[in-house]
Amino acid sequence: MKDFPAVFPRILGHEAIGVVESVGENVDGVVEGDVVIPHFLADCTECVGCRSKKGNLCSAFPFKISPWMPRDQTSRFKDLRGETIHHFVSVSSFSEYTVLDIAHVVKVDPTVPPNRACLLSCGVSTGVGAAWRTANVEVGSTVVIFGLGSIGLAVAEGARLCGATRIIGVDVISEKFEIGKRFGVTEFVNSKNCGDKSVSQIIIDMTDGGADYCFECVGLASLVQEAYACCRKGWGKTIVLGVDQPGSQLSLSSFEVLHSGKILMGSLFGGLKAKSDIPILLKRYMDKELELDKFVTHEMKFEEINSAFDLLIKGKCLRCVIWMGE
Amino acid sequence: MKDFPAVFPRILGHEAIGVVESVGENVDGVVEGDVVIPHFLADCTECVGCRSKKGNLCSAFPFKISPWMPRDQTSRFKDLRGETIHHFVSVSSFSEYTVLDIAHVVKVDPTVPPNRACLLSCGVSTGVGAAWRTANVEVGSTVVIFGLGSIGLAVAEGARLCGATRIIGVDVISEKFEIGKRFGVTEFVNSKNCGDKSVSQIIIDMTDGGADYCFECVGLASLVQEAYACCRKGWGKTIVLGVDQPGSQLSLSSFEVLHSGKILMGSLFGGLKAKSDIPILLKRYMDKELELDKFVTHEMKFEEINSAFDLLIKGKCLRCVIWMGE
Repeated sequence: MKDFPAVFPRILGHEAIGVVESVGENVDGVVEGDVVIPHFLADCTECVGCRSKKGNLCSAFPFKISPWMPRDQTSRFKDLRGETIHHFVSVSSFSEYTVLDIAHVVKVDPTVPPNRACLLSCGVSTGVGAAWRTANVEVGSTVVIFGLGSIGLAVAEGARLCGATRIIGVDVISEKFEIGKRFGVTEFVNSKNCGDKSVSQIIIDMTDGGADYCFECVGLASLVQEAYACCRKGWGKTIVLGVDQPGSQLSLSSFEVLHSGKILMGSLFGGLKAKSDIPILLKRYMDKELELDKFVTHEMKFEEINSAFDLLIKGKCLRCVIWMGE
Repeated sequence: MKDFPAVFPRILGHEAIGVVESVGENVDGVVEGDVVIPHFLADCTECVGCRSKKGNLCSAFPFKISPWMPRDQTSRFKDLRGETIHHFVSVSSFSEYTVLDIAHVVKVDPTVPPNRACLLSCGVSTGVGAAWRTANVEVGSTVVIFGLGSIGLAVAEGARLCGATRIIGVDVISEKFEIGKRFGVTEFVNSKNCGDKSVSQIIIDMTDGGADYCFECVGLASLVQEAYACCRKGWGKTIVLGVDQPGSQLSLSSFEVLHSGKILMGSLFGGLKAKSDIPILLKRYMDKELELDKFVTHEMKFEEINSAFDLLIKGKCLRCVIWMGE
């Protein structure tokens, strides 16, 4: 479990937008006053991973739930007694000031409203990108989304943008269908109300053989198996976005893997390269293609952040935007 | 295990070439005298699977180890007492005459030598196609092949044709490297001589991070896991060709599936659409690009077929071509 160290004290938070207050030595690409979005997944632009068009995983600074700055494994935060406060996934945005490595910062168009642009720092990017970059959803295709939380809804938004014809949501709460419709969900299956059938049997019947793309946005190996079963033989893709418990194992039938022609892939940060893809998505928002407004259900002051967590825990919000400062 | 019925008596054999002796009613596309290659994987050309460019699995006649003709689930063979003799995967080629559904027949250029063209009926097509169609191996890439039997060597041939720079063979028999070199294998790892390291650790070291494509050509879930581990994070593809025991389960870490950006896919008949892709490969053979001659280690008469099986069991042959008739 060394990749999940519970190190405290720590500044949490990893979805944000901000203004550059100062720039360190030997750092190019941003200057004081630039509007920037931090991103947890490094994009150093120089390593074999960042230079390739085929993926978005930086090999110079591979993803870790790290408590340190990525380049020198130290902290830039101290408390009033001089004791170390740790970082969180190279962002630490629950703070009025933070320190970021340039590999984790993308400069953005300052005219985009910050309470919308910040959504592209992680969650919405992850879902939209999973449909757009990882799966490359084709026009006219059929998509199934397991879990209609913000990530699943962002997948729906991405699939809608890609021109999917059918977007089938699967969740245990039927009210999610009404929310999902605003994001392009066209049909709904409550996985608790399937009777004698499995979800995959129902989806295979609904789609006459299976879906072109299935997205797991919950974080359960058993749902990945169900998503894999829902995919159309020959080319169906299962894309895993959900974070399962550490140590969890995904089990698939060897026979099915060989004989089905199906594809299994993971999607971290939606397969997006932060420095090039976030600006594209922001432009699509300004061009009124990508709809971000509907993700923001609440806006609050920093002092109210615990109320925002209460809403999150109760499932009463999609995205709460927290304003720092005055 | 209903997909593996041990039904006898039966005419086995599924790699072949032949001449059309007669054509049934309502059958278009071949006439008496045409040279044809049978293929176990249907290509009806009309169903949603066959019409799609994305896969090669016919949904009208899905693959089964079936003892019957695919369209009406009957047999066309009887013994001298009138008792049923069963079919085998819609081919049954260990016989001077057989009966094939048009979905399992491709008409080919009669000028291609039949003792070479027959190789494209299954094994060589499967390996070459896995590199070419399923994986779409890119120029300059690094490929790892687990198991240097005929299928693995055909993958090497396909990877060589696609322009792979490094083709690393993995096998438990070191002599396979010398054979492999003739098929484009550039490096070799004997998985029994890895010392304290796993094969994947050695491959990751050799490739500075992992291979672009890993092909499992043995049929062991544990090797699929090792192949998956050998793949480069960000885009590495694991392609499963090996047939594991019925009921076998493939287990992968959920964390790795999500976080690695790797892709897992199966390859049945190399992802080839028989009716369109076999003629392309035959032309590439006639154009001296695809090298088929080196796969044929023996040629025998039908009466010697049991000697051919002895060679197969002892690992002393690649492909034995059996001549029917005079």
